[in-house]
Amino acid sequence: MTIERKHVGPRMSQVAIYGNTVFLAGITAEQRGGTSVAEQTAEILARIDTLLAEAGSSKEQVYKATIWLRDIAAFDEMNSVWDKWVVPGHTPVRATVEARLAMPDVLVEIQVEAAKA
Amino acid sequence: MTIERKHVGPRMSQVAIYGNTVFLAGITAEQRGGTSVAEQTAEILARIDTLLAEAGSSKEQVYKATIWLRDIAAFDEMNSVWDKWVVPGHTPVRATVEARLAMPDVLVEIQVEAAKA
Amino acid sequence: MTIERKHVGPRMSQVAIYGNTVFLAGITAEQRGGTSVAEQTAEILARIDTLLAEAGSSKEQVYKATIWLRDIAAFDEMNSVWDKWVVPGHTPVRATVEARLAMPDVLVEIQVEAAKA
Repeated sequence: MTIERKHVGPRMSQVAIYGNTVFLAGITAEQRGGTSVAEQTAEILARIDTLLAEAGSSKEQVYKATIWLRDIAAFDEMNSVWDKWVVPGHTPVRATVEARLAMPDVLVEIQVEAAKA
Repeated sequence: MTIERKHVGPRMSQVAIYGNTVFLAGITAEQRGGTSVAEQTAEILARIDTLLAEAGSSKEQVYKATIWLRDIAAFDEMNSVWDKWVVPGHTPVRATVEARLAMPDVLVEIQVEAAKA
Repeated sequence: MTIERKHVGPRMSQVAIYGNTVFLAGITAEQRGGTSVAEQTAEILARIDTLLAEAGSSKEQVYKATIWLRDIAAFDEMNSVWDKWVVPGHTPVRATVEARLAMPDVLVEIQVEAAKA
């Protein structure tokens, strides 16, 4: 079994496909100056949709998600966007914890694993 | 290959089975008011035992664990419970880090991946 | 499918092989007193090379990495070592977050998953 990588950079790739599984990098928002946690979450989830589609998967097939919040006080705000994004009956296992992220204006980072269709 | 999910909520599932692997959510204790890290760890590990059994697995087949502690100073206290729970010769790979968790009285959260029997 | 474990301790194992995947524990440096983030990162990545080789894999086959930094301000310093270690065209998906680790002098911890050759 070989690993297929997409959006391959010198430091990391955005997507790795191994066997029947699609692994995405921890995704952060590009629009950050002054944006809210809700706005960053929405941008991240849209980006995840795009990356999963490129890999032959979709949010319905996400089985695991890890979410890091710069301030855990934003838990409800993040969830207000997350809860509308997930597909009823197809929600993944999840862990959400607080962590300072690569840059101070990165308020949320989300990483998922999904089945390949 | 399809994903089988158990304890499926609108936000997340507690269990996802994909291929030969059982993925559990990050598990926290329900008894939290005034409980210790050791007590929360014991409740979590008992809950993990139950969820793994429902998924056709067991702690002997856990190959990976991630542990978040609200205060890393509780490392030894958590381990005092963990060390008695794991099965000699069948210990998983593990990472343990400090992180504020969803609510202030969540002192520890544990997530595991296990082989399906 | 059975799980093969290596460097099996009473608390955790350093390596678990399940199916076609090699899972490593979160690896920390043993040389810590007064060492820099760059030095600890270099020791960790050398240790990962050794563990992967023992498991029949290599850094070229790492598809996922998680990095914890005690102080996210060391992001660039860690990356200066990481960027030279990874194999061009074979970079993994990655998430890097700040977290206090098991002991105060643990400045960085790295965990990887890799394909078995």
